[in-house]
Amino acid sequence: MIKYLTSSFLFLAFSIGLAQSDQEQIDKIYKTALTNGKSYEWLDYLSNQIGGRLSGSLNAEKAVKWGKEELEKLGLDKVWLQPVMVPKWVRGIKEYAYIETTPGNTTVVNVCALGGSMATPFGGLKANVVEVNSLEDLEKIGEQNIKGKIVFYNRPMDEELINTFQAYGGCVDQRYSGAMEAAKYGALGVIVRSMNLRLDDYPHTGSMTYGDLPLSQRIPAAAISTNHAELLSSMLKLDKRIKFYFSQSCMQLKDVQSYNVIGEITGSEFPDEYIIVGGHLDSWDLGDGSHDDGAGIVQSMDVLRLLKETGIKPKRSIRVVLFMNEENGMRGAMKYKEEVDKKGENHVFALESDAGGFTPRGFSFDCSDANFNQVLEWKPLFKPYLIHYFEKGGSGADVGPLKNDNNVLAGLRPDSQRYFDYHHAANDTFDAVNKRELELGAATMTSLVYLYDKYGVNPIKKEPQIKN
Amino acid sequence: MIKYLTSSFLFLAFSIGLAQSDQEQIDKIYKTALTNGKSYEWLDYLSNQIGGRLSGSLNAEKAVKWGKEELEKLGLDKVWLQPVMVPKWVRGIKEYAYIETTPGNTTVVNVCALGGSMATPFGGLKANVVEVNSLEDLEKIGEQNIKGKIVFYNRPMDEELINTFQAYGGCVDQRYSGAMEAAKYGALGVIVRSMNLRLDDYPHTGSMTYGDLPLSQRIPAAAISTNHAELLSSMLKLDKRIKFYFSQSCMQLKDVQSYNVIGEITGSEFPDEYIIVGGHLDSWDLGDGSHDDGAGIVQSMDVLRLLKETGIKPKRSIRVVLFMNEENGMRGAMKYKEEVDKKGENHVFALESDAGGFTPRGFSFDCSDANFNQVLEWKPLFKPYLIHYFEKGGSGADVGPLKNDNNVLAGLRPDSQRYFDYHHAANDTFDAVNKRELELGAATMTSLVYLYDKYGVNPIKKEPQIKN
Repeated sequence: MIKYLTSSFLFLAFSIGLAQSDQEQIDKIYKTALTNGKSYEWLDYLSNQIGGRLSGSLNAEKAVKWGKEELEKLGLDKVWLQPVMVPKWVRGIKEYAYIETTPGNTTVVNVCALGGSMATPFGGLKANVVEVNSLEDLEKIGEQNIKGKIVFYNRPMDEELINTFQAYGGCVDQRYSGAMEAAKYGALGVIVRSMNLRLDDYPHTGSMTYGDLPLSQRIPAAAISTNHAELLSSMLKLDKRIKFYFSQSCMQLKDVQSYNVIGEITGSEFPDEYIIVGGHLDSWDLGDGSHDDGAGIVQSMDVLRLLKETGIKPKRSIRVVLFMNEENGMRGAMKYKEEVDKKGENHVFALESDAGGFTPRGFSFDCSDANFNQVLEWKPLFKPYLIHYFEKGGSGADVGPLKNDNNVLAGLRPDSQRYFDYHHAANDTFDAVNKRELELGAATMTSLVYLYDKYGVNPIKKEPQIKN
Repeated sequence: MIKYLTSSFLFLAFSIGLAQSDQEQIDKIYKTALTNGKSYEWLDYLSNQIGGRLSGSLNAEKAVKWGKEELEKLGLDKVWLQPVMVPKWVRGIKEYAYIETTPGNTTVVNVCALGGSMATPFGGLKANVVEVNSLEDLEKIGEQNIKGKIVFYNRPMDEELINTFQAYGGCVDQRYSGAMEAAKYGALGVIVRSMNLRLDDYPHTGSMTYGDLPLSQRIPAAAISTNHAELLSSMLKLDKRIKFYFSQSCMQLKDVQSYNVIGEITGSEFPDEYIIVGGHLDSWDLGDGSHDDGAGIVQSMDVLRLLKETGIKPKRSIRVVLFMNEENGMRGAMKYKEEVDKKGENHVFALESDAGGFTPRGFSFDCSDANFNQVLEWKPLFKPYLIHYFEKGGSGADVGPLKNDNNVLAGLRPDSQRYFDYHHAANDTFDAVNKRELELGAATMTSLVYLYDKYGVNPIKKEPQIKN
């Protein structure tokens, strides 16, 4: 049976009711993406001419303008900006940190402020260090061992997990909640091991929260590179009396005006059924955000272009949404959802690309079993392109709020092995993206959008029709 | 049915007779490879301390010594060198080339001699250029348009193909036979577009042949970077009278002594059934051969180590073979086969890794349908590690000669999108290899070797037993 599946996908595809034209159309999409794709050229501009685009920054404004102009060039039916207020956090002067074994005997280490962190006191913060492996460790160790010190969270990502996002999920509480929790025990500051499976010299930023902590109790938090986390840990093993110094001048300013950028091809038959594809236009500020999420932006834009290029006139309304402020606020996603609800727009399918521009492996689907069974019927169509991964699971942060009982949310799932080498770090740059891998992702997304547009989403409940 | 397959692989695996212990054992192999693998550390040494190791070079000698010493440290049952004479080709002084539009008006371009090419005449070779897209073009164009010129083969790899090795296969005749064929029409030299899907500045070397061409008729051949191939082509479109100059001082010396390096764990139950795993120890000289085929070498070595580390005592004899001279002669593979035949060794399974150290996607199998059906039963065991690709096809150049009707040859199939960005070029270096991707390859290979060792290879013909 298995052999039958692997060697006769075409026969299988046809036998379960897919027209040969679907395979031909999908083949056309892949070939067009690989020979006449636009995603790589767009990413070159977004990454190298604009660069890192943290919410509220001048670069984020430039990216909004660029996104709108590029979508307008595609000849879509509508292109518009959806206003949304976003947080504005600024990094300030480059951070500086060292380990001090004895006064004057110091080793400089690489750190960066976590997004949303406060500054250290003017002149920096120096204190003894207590290393922990989890938020739970704080209670075990107790206030007497934490008060007045810097808490160093050093639990690494789990190397044994094949899916690196799972390893990230098992670790990121240290970064997100570490300062808030350590502050409750009287810590002066927090240093977090970078969320990176590789040992290297890049500190990785990312969002954090102080929750309801009053301003007066908040403490600064920074990430340290994995190599320097190892160094700090080994030095602490030798001598618990060593001190850590760090200085950062970041701050949270007032919210500013920004925008989601939206383009639409209005459906010819079912204009009130919406299919959206998107990623987030904002990025962190250390690199140029090529993988996170420049890749998702340009792939999503290319979905609409590839549909047009390959002669598809959608039945349903297809939108590309370049969400603002995924990284530190999710304001764009919430605003989009708010407007959808206000207008009562029926979003039948939403696809997000926010896992890097690596070779696509498939999709994760957040939907009912009935809807999942529908999409599994299409899986054989993707086999020639080495797309095998069709699993139930999450979709993406920006499309997540659109979930309901009847629709399908999905996330593109590229190969994840290298993603956290670059994620939120200074090396997330254009040269780390391979043109073909990026284009294969765009083609894979376009093919699924094509199928959902053609066949629609199965209604979840089909009550037997009883004649009156 | 499909859903059942994707969501219930464990159940499926058990229902078709695989013991749960196989899944557990394979899980142990993957976890050990990812947390306690040796391949990356070995590759660091081979790439950075030894470097490029062309057959017959001092570095190739060093690599042989290193390979033997490292295998000896593993406590295998036997480690030995298998002598083999190999060709020795040397590149000489760095090549130099330019395009000349008018005398004195030149643009320097990046070229490298093809492996096995002769030198240009002392002082270099300058001539007009005729661009062609195939060997067949030569006949169409005719001797009158070729004689006294440099033939420029510029057919690019086919971007539309998903498997980049297929695109390579459709293109490499220009490199391998281009000079031999062009010489027959009186060409003075040959320039070949690098076998690279990406537009960049690296020329990619690789093997070529003069066939039976007498020495006096041979002409020099070099590869040009894809960017400069595009440049040369566009300049030729503007003016056919431009000239091309290149200078190279490479030469073929006498054969020298070298070795295959072999290590063995002797089987406890069926010592006369051999399973081998290998790659090639030689590389081209421009980079350090990290992907081609340092990766395959260290993964193959780690297969035997991982079997030991995870407590497997093989029933069959498991060998790692570090083949010499894959790149320009295949002498190691031929010698190994010769010795196998001489001793009548029964090689039941041979696995090669020579497609780069990228995320493994699965295997290609060269075997009978019956044997392929056997391995398909094991496929569900690989699903948790995102290994989906089990297809019939080729295996690898070095294990190929071992083929018979009853055995199974296989090749590891990593993701192929980036491979030809590095293949045979100066950027095939250690930093282009990701530790986890390399380790996942080693684990995937080890798991398959474990299964073949445990279950053996099904005999192809099972005639019904008739009682006398």
